[in-house]
Amino acid sequence: MNAQPSGYYAVIFTSKRAAGNEEEYARVSESMDTLAAEQPGFIGIDTGRSADGVGVTVSYWETAEDVARWKAIAEHDWAQQRGRDVYYEWYHVRVAHVERAYKFEKSTGGNEQ
Amino acid sequence: MNAQPSGYYAVIFTSKRAAGNEEEYARVSESMDTLAAEQPGFIGIDTGRSADGVGVTVSYWETAEDVARWKAIAEHDWAQQRGRDVYYEWYHVRVAHVERAYKFEKSTGGNEQ
Repeated sequence: MNAQPSGYYAVIFTSKRAAGNEEEYARVSESMDTLAAEQPGFIGIDTGRSADGVGVTVSYWETAEDVARWKAIAEHDWAQQRGRDVYYEWYHVRVAHVERAYKFEKSTGGNEQ
Repeated sequence: MNAQPSGYYAVIFTSKRAAGNEEEYARVSESMDTLAAEQPGFIGIDTGRSADGVGVTVSYWETAEDVARWKAIAEHDWAQQRGRDVYYEWYHVRVAHVERAYKFEKSTGGNEQ
């Protein structure tokens, strides 16, 4: 695998969806992603959600200050408040510092580290 | 949200599935999860994969040594080798140190940090 830049931050959001409000949730979730992408220090976001309702979203940020700023915005956002009551059975948030990163892409077939 | 223990490690595996081999992939993926859970220092694992084939799996480990040991096992595993060629268009691996963690659960309704 190819070594990649590290030293940035990952916010790992794992959750279990509560039943219902599918369209509203999709709309709010997309608007939150858009809002995140507009913030300083935003690098990117990856999301997967399985049929059992468990989802993992990881957003990447340049610095700890960028993470703190985004956390404050997200917590005061309407979606966050409504999320606790309506959208989720539970969610966990983990703020982590990326120490090492590697990637594999079929087109390059790289095997270096 | 309730403050949670931190100081452990998260291995963030994001990937894009290549088409095909669905049953084989499901079987190999499950056996890799089982193998991970048998290793020293394993804390847990969360996975979500969306309909577009993008998936995010995060495994949690007590120490950096536990992560390194698991990485060596996974890289030499058949599934890993075959994964590069057959299962994935691309994948990224990020090793991150969890600095802060919070959780919300509907049953407790906690709002502390």
